[in-house]
Amino acid sequence: MKVSILTICPDVFDSFLNMPVLARALRDGQLELEVVDIREFAPGSFRHIDDSPFGGGAGMILRCQPVLDALAAVRSPESRTVALTPSGTPYTQKHAHELAEVPHLILLCGHYEGFDARILKHADEELSIGDYILTGGETAALVLLDSIARLLPGVIRQASTEDESFEDGLLEYPQYTQPADYNGDTVPDVLLSGDHGRIRRWRRHQALRLTRARRPDLFEQLDLSDEDLALLEELPEEP
Amino acid sequence: MKVSILTICPDVFDSFLNMPVLARALRDGQLELEVVDIREFAPGSFRHIDDSPFGGGAGMILRCQPVLDALAAVRSPESRTVALTPSGTPYTQKHAHELAEVPHLILLCGHYEGFDARILKHADEELSIGDYILTGGETAALVLLDSIARLLPGVIRQASTEDESFEDGLLEYPQYTQPADYNGDTVPDVLLSGDHGRIRRWRRHQALRLTRARRPDLFEQLDLSDEDLALLEELPEEP
Repeated sequence: MKVSILTICPDVFDSFLNMPVLARALRDGQLELEVVDIREFAPGSFRHIDDSPFGGGAGMILRCQPVLDALAAVRSPESRTVALTPSGTPYTQKHAHELAEVPHLILLCGHYEGFDARILKHADEELSIGDYILTGGETAALVLLDSIARLLPGVIRQASTEDESFEDGLLEYPQYTQPADYNGDTVPDVLLSGDHGRIRRWRRHQALRLTRARRPDLFEQLDLSDEDLALLEELPEEP
Repeated sequence: MKVSILTICPDVFDSFLNMPVLARALRDGQLELEVVDIREFAPGSFRHIDDSPFGGGAGMILRCQPVLDALAAVRSPESRTVALTPSGTPYTQKHAHELAEVPHLILLCGHYEGFDARILKHADEELSIGDYILTGGETAALVLLDSIARLLPGVIRQASTEDESFEDGLLEYPQYTQPADYNGDTVPDVLLSGDHGRIRRWRRHQALRLTRARRPDLFEQLDLSDEDLALLEELPEEP
């Protein structure tokens, strides 16, 4: 897929592309990235990209003309345009899967106090990566890029993306690696048992318990199977 | 404040520090950043930082020893250690304000399939930037860095941080800048009226309406004033 990032800070992306999975997707051609400098579309030597808000208030607002001209220059009928704004729909793993299917994704990054609201009508959707304020949509674009690139076919082993947090509406169970005893802190016995059925049930139980404890909002959306309900009853509280 | 990022990908951060607000905070000394390479704490020329999970499964898990030795090397009694994991508490603007008060923030970045769970007991808290999977905590660290740096005293004008999404539990009202008419798309009349009371009420109404429409989860947590309730009744639906 191709991703075009429209930004007034084109020089913030380079070193992030060293993230191993992204670097591999770019090198192997599953992902093509284009960073478009909105300033290039602002006229004159002053490159006037922003102005103060109508009605008063602090900060500067990105003007329609340079942003919409930049968008027109990169957009094609197969493009999907996402504006990154704090008022957008909360971005989730479901969006990541959906956007990983798009041939051309355009990410519009606001900056300062954000976009002139008329710009947003030209996007297909507005997404927000979380309930906090960033200095620019650039940081949000990195989040989308990272979460989408890893889902592209052939980028990472399929099995690595199946058993993770959010894929089945649950947080992930705890993981452990060598050594079995680290300064007296030991791995739960069940994981050393070699009994794959028991290990599977223990992990499912841990994932259910962790989700119920930390994310009641996710837990109450689950459609629990009879086996899940039995697990929550049967197994001891803590390993 | 000082931020230490513990990571196995120390070379992904550099160009992000060109984000204008971050660059200024670093230059003017409100923010000091230390990027610590966890590999430096792994013994031998092989720098063995990860291993396969006990109990089977795809992917690699970061080992206790290098991560905890790196943590011990940078930690002091005034440090606050945050592990960035998808199972953490959802990070919000409230956390950003709280962490902006900390003299030394340590951000632990997982990678691959994440941390050995025993590592997490050594963190003060686990935070998640959203319900999606990243290839590493590095991307989450950038989000925290960006959202916290802008709240440090003297980094941006106070007024710019007061009237924003999430600061009062509301999404922000739409903003507009020059020109008043862009290819036939015009700015709402009220913003050109010069009547500051009317503008203030219109903006509040827009913020209330937008939040109710897009984020019922936030809207139902609001403690609405009589004035807010009146605004929602009185004003026309759409400008």
